[in-house]
Amino acid sequence: MAVSPLAPAAFPDLPQIGGVRFSSAAAGVRYKGRTDVMLAVIDPGSTVAGVFTRSATRSAPVLDCEAKLAAPASEGGYAFLVNSGNSNAFTGSAGETAVHGLTAATSAATGVPEANILTASTGVIGEPLPWERIRDALDGLNGSLAPDGIAGAARAIMTTDTFPKGASAEVQVGGKAVRIAGMAKGSGMIAPDMATMLVYIFTDAAYDRAALQALLRRLTDRTFNCITVDSDTSTSDSLLMAATGASGVDATGDDAFAEALEGVMLDLAHQVVRDGEGATKFVEIAVTGAEDDADARKVAMAIANSPLVKTAIAGEDPNWGRIVMAVGKSGAKADRDLLSIRLGETLVAEKGWVSPDYREEAGAAYMKQQELVIGVDLGLGQGSAKAWTCDLTHGYIEINADYRS
Amino acid sequence: MAVSPLAPAAFPDLPQIGGVRFSSAAAGVRYKGRTDVMLAVIDPGSTVAGVFTRSATRSAPVLDCEAKLAAPASEGGYAFLVNSGNSNAFTGSAGETAVHGLTAATSAATGVPEANILTASTGVIGEPLPWERIRDALDGLNGSLAPDGIAGAARAIMTTDTFPKGASAEVQVGGKAVRIAGMAKGSGMIAPDMATMLVYIFTDAAYDRAALQALLRRLTDRTFNCITVDSDTSTSDSLLMAATGASGVDATGDDAFAEALEGVMLDLAHQVVRDGEGATKFVEIAVTGAEDDADARKVAMAIANSPLVKTAIAGEDPNWGRIVMAVGKSGAKADRDLLSIRLGETLVAEKGWVSPDYREEAGAAYMKQQELVIGVDLGLGQGSAKAWTCDLTHGYIEINADYRS
Repeated sequence: MAVSPLAPAAFPDLPQIGGVRFSSAAAGVRYKGRTDVMLAVIDPGSTVAGVFTRSATRSAPVLDCEAKLAAPASEGGYAFLVNSGNSNAFTGSAGETAVHGLTAATSAATGVPEANILTASTGVIGEPLPWERIRDALDGLNGSLAPDGIAGAARAIMTTDTFPKGASAEVQVGGKAVRIAGMAKGSGMIAPDMATMLVYIFTDAAYDRAALQALLRRLTDRTFNCITVDSDTSTSDSLLMAATGASGVDATGDDAFAEALEGVMLDLAHQVVRDGEGATKFVEIAVTGAEDDADARKVAMAIANSPLVKTAIAGEDPNWGRIVMAVGKSGAKADRDLLSIRLGETLVAEKGWVSPDYREEAGAAYMKQQELVIGVDLGLGQGSAKAWTCDLTHGYIEINADYRS
Repeated sequence: MAVSPLAPAAFPDLPQIGGVRFSSAAAGVRYKGRTDVMLAVIDPGSTVAGVFTRSATRSAPVLDCEAKLAAPASEGGYAFLVNSGNSNAFTGSAGETAVHGLTAATSAATGVPEANILTASTGVIGEPLPWERIRDALDGLNGSLAPDGIAGAARAIMTTDTFPKGASAEVQVGGKAVRIAGMAKGSGMIAPDMATMLVYIFTDAAYDRAALQALLRRLTDRTFNCITVDSDTSTSDSLLMAATGASGVDATGDDAFAEALEGVMLDLAHQVVRDGEGATKFVEIAVTGAEDDADARKVAMAIANSPLVKTAIAGEDPNWGRIVMAVGKSGAKADRDLLSIRLGETLVAEKGWVSPDYREEAGAAYMKQQELVIGVDLGLGQGSAKAWTCDLTHGYIEINADYRS
């Protein structure tokens, strides 16, 4: 499949994170001739936190991770084991057998206690995971762990993704540098609900475990929970973050660190949208003037999820009437006569109608851009929110009417 | 545009309803060479009730209708005036000027008091309605009113519809026959919220006004509010019903009448789905075993709105994993291990996994049908609901990436 036209020029040069090593392998889970398993091993003394899908039909690995992170922390380091090609979701008791088989085998290979082995699986739903193939790859994975293996790991977790996704930051905490590096996969079934796609983030700062969990939840609401490709929510969405403390710096509660982490999360979230199935346009929806932030988010997501708005964008049609429609259906408080709509800098509609200075040619010219900003001001209060989405094209239909995912 | 493959063989032979006359005309609102305005005049002594979109950006005609129906009933009969080609939505004070201009002109032409003239407009949002063109057609419309004009009227209100939609019933009330006849338009921007597309229903029974309003609301929730084409809700959705009493029979509170009316409404709702933009499959989602009916409806609509389910149907892929996903994201209470899924009569998944007797070939053969039933039993309680939708195809993208609606 061709790489998304919205992809970054290249995978970024990610910093090594002290205390974390990566490897990847081709276990033949579903795909032939490409890597499909990644292993990350994290040194003892690290803290780990995670955020997961709220789907009522969560996958077996998600249920296992949630149980482990809810238990008191245990010693001995962590390992993340992730495969693509099969999500091990809706696979009944066989799904649990596969997870336990893999966590036991990973513990045997790496020496990390089984209570600290966190797995994820992504791909087709409802088919048995051929977990023995992954088990048989574990000794090789353990033997090839390397501090610079993150790029290969990011590639191994791709499914319909057309490019691997990475982002990083370096930030000063108490006068000393700490680093954050993350990777993500995702391009369809993207409307995370209080969670995200598969995302793994690492830092060499130390961070209190409960505080890290709270920080991740808060930042997820402002990053991964504000993107949508197709309004569908995965059974497997998982975000895990490990803070190794290898830098000797404790970043717990540090504002600059939180800001840098939010930047990394937002960058990864945007890359997921840029790899949206069939996407040719990257669209930011910026809502202001709502009664509160929750209403602003409702409006932003209603626009971002509207098939009629997304097909208009695909057709480069400045069809702001469909934006009005989406505002109206959002459930948020809105007053037709106070609403204003902008395409980029151009004021299109205000006071309940098209702006007197607006010219259709200006809107049509703007819509030809690859990166678009739709601005909506509700004129009611101080609430604001942003959401990010892509257009809805023939490519989405082609991918999903044929691909069994 | 080609007629939908899911269209009925022909427009039904609708009974004449005593006390109602129809006409249609080509006023050139937007389209050339086709009718685009319909007038229905209803005799004095009739009662009228209506249900409208809950969009926060409702059109000017919807706001006018709501105000008129909220006021005490007045004497002198009713008129419904409807145009296609322009929705007169988000047109500011010019929208109100257009509505008042049209209701005054319709009153002058027909002799019906202005307080009883109910209008609707459907088509492009945000462009001024050239209402003078409709005004200039009113004398001709009034002069050509006829009891058998309903088929022409149903055709005049079409936009992206590929066929006109009608349905009828005859039912015995107190040993005497009364008749119901209705028409509808709609094929995109279809996810009515406590309302519907443009729908007009007539009966020669008498019916108490407040009771008719309550009946319409209740039946709308079980018919038009259970269909979806694209999850988008129109600014103009309107359902109006007139009970003329010309039969001499009062049907207020009659169960057989309510059942017959529900049948007419469901028939029209299904026809809207059958004319869904780009549709090639008609799909019923039947949910049982939910904790309550509200949860069942959440699950049914989550499946019916899921782009991934709808593209799988377009691809004739028995991809029940995507149905599991949609159940999971619906927000309804669900237990993976109690859930069962059927494609038609075939049990596909149960007890948290694929059914041991299920063969992929059976599912694949079923998906080739044009009419599909997806059954989901949640195994929790007695709640049930049905929803109706169509598949998501290249046709939908073609229509909406190009057509300015």
